[in-house]
Amino acid sequence: MSARVTESTECAETGKRCPSGRHADHDVYSAQCPCRAMLDLLANKWSALAIGALEDGPQRFGEIQRTLQGVSPKVLTSTLRRLEEFGFVDRTVYPAVPLHVEYSLTVLGHSAAVPLGLLRTWVEDNLDEIPEPAEGRPR
Amino acid sequence: MSARVTESTECAETGKRCPSGRHADHDVYSAQCPCRAMLDLLANKWSALAIGALEDGPQRFGEIQRTLQGVSPKVLTSTLRRLEEFGFVDRTVYPAVPLHVEYSLTVLGHSAAVPLGLLRTWVEDNLDEIPEPAEGRPR
Repeated sequence: MSARVTESTECAETGKRCPSGRHADHDVYSAQCPCRAMLDLLANKWSALAIGALEDGPQRFGEIQRTLQGVSPKVLTSTLRRLEEFGFVDRTVYPAVPLHVEYSLTVLGHSAAVPLGLLRTWVEDNLDEIPEPAEGRPR
Repeated sequence: MSARVTESTECAETGKRCPSGRHADHDVYSAQCPCRAMLDLLANKWSALAIGALEDGPQRFGEIQRTLQGVSPKVLTSTLRRLEEFGFVDRTVYPAVPLHVEYSLTVLGHSAAVPLGLLRTWVEDNLDEIPEPAEGRPR
């Protein structure tokens, strides 16, 4: 857990003052810090899977949908749109009939892919360590 | 993105065969793999914050709620219950009047805290890299 300065509105000496003005540095534990919305976007199953799917290169919507088994078109559209709005994903439209649209990771998206990849790998590597709950595994 | 064997039900030579029987190794991209439910639990804002809050030692419900600013009692109860069901969190009741209940990380929880901590830190460190969207930052 990182050090937090949630009670103070004083300017941080680091120069990374949070634009919320409610505390010095960014702090995911603060409801006012804008990074809470970013954590909400990235700490999300479909975001974690979509960013991973694009790590190897640009893909079309249908390709991503096939990779993210079980995702609905509506949820995938919403996920990609939010990732684009936050600057993690670029959406490129190539002139063609029908239109050719490709999604790719930005530099920021490739950077975020690192901790998300570690989380996905941790889950795959540690699933067998989870105890069987008494009344069946919850979903 | 990890190598995937989603089209095959053949037994993996690694001995880590997925109990779903739908593929060899565990694969977060497979809708049938039980690790999808685990990713859904961990790749979640409140889970990531709650596990981080417990990294420094056991806490009572009210302490966790104060740390996770903005969380509702209902959502925090549900989050802690699921983390307990999956074996990430222990809930210990000490006999006292009123009852003293403490939540703490299990060994598995401490292990999961590592990738989740990297994700929280990445968000705090990279928030300033996010471009300002044209119509205001989405939430």
